[in-house]
Amino acid sequence: MAAIAILGYGTVGSGVYEVLKTNGESIDKKALQPITIKYVLDLRDFPGDPVEDVLTHDFEDIISDDEVEVVVEVMGGIEPAYTFVKRSILKGKSVCTSNKALVAKHGAELLRLAKENNVNFLFEASVGGGIPIIRPIIRSITSDRIEEITGILNGTTNYMLTKMGDEGLEYDDVLKDAQAKGYAERNPEADVEGHDTCRKIAILASLATGRQVNFEDIYTEGITNVSKTDIDYAKAAGMDIKLVATASFTDKGVWARVCPLIVAPDNPLSGVKDVFNAIKLTGNMLGEVMFYGKGAGKLPTAAAVVSDIVDAVRHKNINLGVHWSEEVQPLLDINNVKVKKLVRFAYNDRDAAFAAVNGIFGSVDFIEGIAEDEAAFITSPAEESTVNENVNKLLNSDGISDVLASIRVEYR
Amino acid sequence: MAAIAILGYGTVGSGVYEVLKTNGESIDKKALQPITIKYVLDLRDFPGDPVEDVLTHDFEDIISDDEVEVVVEVMGGIEPAYTFVKRSILKGKSVCTSNKALVAKHGAELLRLAKENNVNFLFEASVGGGIPIIRPIIRSITSDRIEEITGILNGTTNYMLTKMGDEGLEYDDVLKDAQAKGYAERNPEADVEGHDTCRKIAILASLATGRQVNFEDIYTEGITNVSKTDIDYAKAAGMDIKLVATASFTDKGVWARVCPLIVAPDNPLSGVKDVFNAIKLTGNMLGEVMFYGKGAGKLPTAAAVVSDIVDAVRHKNINLGVHWSEEVQPLLDINNVKVKKLVRFAYNDRDAAFAAVNGIFGSVDFIEGIAEDEAAFITSPAEESTVNENVNKLLNSDGISDVLASIRVEYR
Repeated sequence: MAAIAILGYGTVGSGVYEVLKTNGESIDKKALQPITIKYVLDLRDFPGDPVEDVLTHDFEDIISDDEVEVVVEVMGGIEPAYTFVKRSILKGKSVCTSNKALVAKHGAELLRLAKENNVNFLFEASVGGGIPIIRPIIRSITSDRIEEITGILNGTTNYMLTKMGDEGLEYDDVLKDAQAKGYAERNPEADVEGHDTCRKIAILASLATGRQVNFEDIYTEGITNVSKTDIDYAKAAGMDIKLVATASFTDKGVWARVCPLIVAPDNPLSGVKDVFNAIKLTGNMLGEVMFYGKGAGKLPTAAAVVSDIVDAVRHKNINLGVHWSEEVQPLLDINNVKVKKLVRFAYNDRDAAFAAVNGIFGSVDFIEGIAEDEAAFITSPAEESTVNENVNKLLNSDGISDVLASIRVEYR
Repeated sequence: MAAIAILGYGTVGSGVYEVLKTNGESIDKKALQPITIKYVLDLRDFPGDPVEDVLTHDFEDIISDDEVEVVVEVMGGIEPAYTFVKRSILKGKSVCTSNKALVAKHGAELLRLAKENNVNFLFEASVGGGIPIIRPIIRSITSDRIEEITGILNGTTNYMLTKMGDEGLEYDDVLKDAQAKGYAERNPEADVEGHDTCRKIAILASLATGRQVNFEDIYTEGITNVSKTDIDYAKAAGMDIKLVATASFTDKGVWARVCPLIVAPDNPLSGVKDVFNAIKLTGNMLGEVMFYGKGAGKLPTAAAVVSDIVDAVRHKNINLGVHWSEEVQPLLDINNVKVKKLVRFAYNDRDAAFAAVNGIFGSVDFIEGIAEDEAAFITSPAEESTVNENVNKLLNSDGISDVLASIRVEYR
């Protein structure tokens, strides 16, 4: 028998409870023993809910109970989650968490402490919700040098961009719709500014390098500036705009970036719609593999947490040995990374403006007819700093009245 | 130090050698010790090849060497692979294999023997080439009841169907092209008749049920009867034809099927082109997740084998406990499974023929204009036996001169 404690009876916590109750029989078989929920910690009361029998308001009940083998942290946020997780590990309990903020910030330390205490710190649900991605990177892709990780890691923003594209709606309208549907929070900043995606790619990049990739070091741009018209231009070029996180592991070093990216239809990420997520890995032997599924939601996320619980129970006092040290991985400046950009500009003199573009960027194909007195084009690949300098030159050119958008285009 | 022996220096075997030489440093780190290739078994000689130093023609050298911890079987075929693998396991050596025929036929027994001898029998590369799928099913999707596994599991046939669709070529021409490119073998039967796909879905279904799903029990239909015109009709209906393997785990029992299937564009399998494979799992908590990548090829397959070697070395004398018993899982008759079909017919009297179709199948939308004196329609969903009976009725109806094709259409 393995006793567990769930910290937090919110969306994911109640999902974990539900998964364990619904699939208990087959889960116990895979864990090789029955799993019992001994405590659920929450500040609130839940009168009439079956969880009442095991509900506690006091973490000390859990930490002082030596029968509790596994602590499931699904509260979110850094504190008190960090303190509770650390104390649990130091007391010889394994921890499973879905908390990407905690993992991105303290993952390396918590993994070290877990190793020192011969327990496990598992976090499959922190990236990609129900999509198995952490365990495949740690356990399956062990014979490859990972060259790139890229993907759509946030369901809220992907839903919004899909809806803007399919229904021709503006950003503010789809945000309201996403909030009404419960996909976006009342304060949507973590999603729409790319912070959530940034923490997830930081976790994946740390696992790929074995070193701490600080999320603060990752260039991050959200979708708040993406307009319906930008999407129309991308579509006119036969492509789509997605919020894409990329970490690239090259001979010269590592770079990482979260930003709206225009992707071609032959990129499997372009078919990823609505709240779905997809993560594409490129290995030097394997080539490309992609993992696809619902990146969020109560039950998919909870299912990933419970898979970790099974793993923790099966590996009692056997540390699984995840390689992610506290040594910081320096990141290359993305200004030196080669990009293409779709540049959208307004003109007061079409001929002069087009001549200016061709003068600065070489001969390009113009996309016109989307909106009046404006056009767009896609640059040739060059270092980001060079492209930006040229865009600045354009801004000061005859015939050009404004540069309206400048959006990276995938470059393979 | 962990010594390994590779049985077979063909495509995959030489790939395993290459992966271990190219990525040795990072592989050794993940295996927590250096991995040494002590023997390569092959009947042939390879003068001048670095493998010469470790080449042997005699399996007895390997089996009698207690230093050899892991035997890598990449010869293919049932014999002598089966005998070598069994003897290795009985001698306390772990085995990693890419041999789907061996795994489908003897997987349950070899897993039991591995358990009894406290070693591991690993076969990640046997399905999906480089795509991690076996380990995710065994290790990651442990909290779900798997409801369905469906996918494109054979790169050769997917390449052929893609090319027939994109370039409007006939079956015989794309087969020749696939053979010229090395995607199809001179005797293409195992691929084009669906046998290869059938063994792969048998393996996945066995892992999902924990019981032996015999590949001989699975209804299997290849692509040899799919014509360019069939694809044109599917396209006219806005869809694509793929060779799809499905295993469905329902309250009433388990059924499995390999056949050409017409899939809608919102099915993520429809975007899987060329030699790529994709496997979609549906869990009762997780919803849908999909795994995508190159399903074959020397280095992707070898990379999956080497990941298994890393796992075997890390778990010396620790059996990983895979649940796949020798008890046979009975399969439901697919005649009782609900399907839709695209039925293509030739007529000698259009009005009479259309009236006959509407009389038997209810009011349908006809697809015309693809070829002269013929049309097609998609049936409503019904049990396969009912649809087939109705197709037979149609064949004997006034105005109908022939039923030219009857192809299952995905039904969700």
